[in-house]
Amino acid sequence: MKATGLSTWMGSWREGTGTISTTTATFKEVAFSFSSRFQGTPGGSPEELLAVALAGCFNQALANNFGMIGLEADTIETSVAIELGFGLDKFPNIFNIIIVCEARIVGISKEDFEGCAERARTRCTIARLLKIDPHLTATLVV
Amino acid sequence: MKATGLSTWMGSWREGTGTISTTTATFKEVAFSFSSRFQGTPGGSPEELLAVALAGCFNQALANNFGMIGLEADTIETSVAIELGFGLDKFPNIFNIIIVCEARIVGISKEDFEGCAERARTRCTIARLLKIDPHLTATLVV
Repeated sequence: MKATGLSTWMGSWREGTGTISTTTATFKEVAFSFSSRFQGTPGGSPEELLAVALAGCFNQALANNFGMIGLEADTIETSVAIELGFGLDKFPNIFNIIIVCEARIVGISKEDFEGCAERARTRCTIARLLKIDPHLTATLVV
Repeated sequence: MKATGLSTWMGSWREGTGTISTTTATFKEVAFSFSSRFQGTPGGSPEELLAVALAGCFNQALANNFGMIGLEADTIETSVAIELGFGLDKFPNIFNIIIVCEARIVGISKEDFEGCAERARTRCTIARLLKIDPHLTATLVV
């Protein structure tokens, strides 16, 4: 499988404007800019996309981990927050990645749940690609 | 800045279904599944989002690098492809990341263009977070 993403840009870093697009129908030509990324104005942000990528990947991995012990979740809900700031070198830097997960799953022990969640945190495909180890708070809702 | 992404999931890894959402208006509750991620059927994919994140981040970094030598691009167009497969351990794995960039910019030397592109490839915020070093083909269009 090859997954492809696109971006255009015109002008300078701070004053320029760009678009980001998936090649599937997920989203097309969403505007992004310095301010949508670093100052919270409306528009796209690479870090937000990375956060979604990790949230989705974590959920699929967690479902797989439950399956490996013969169980299936009713629901898994996960948010991922990525903290972006400026480093001592004054360049943008990602400092922290935080996963918060709630799952409803009948018949799992607390230990098995925590083992499955920890395995997804460290071994899901996106997490394995990242140099920063995400923090995880996983809650079993019964 | 904190960028947040969301995902839900119900059911097993192979048969289950999920959604992915940004917290801004970029996209909401896009369906994804095992097949949309690994078999190319319609729907969202974490790898595609990561590809878009890197494409957008690379373009902003390149615009910044041009600015540092007093120049400004007319246009930058970048695609990022992420190659996803299954490793020897039978788990999904990202094997390769390929950036293809075309830029129109008046008055830049070939050497300066290549230096700016190489710096964006290795030092943009998303690339610095990745354990895989992306490949880059950057073309100066005049």
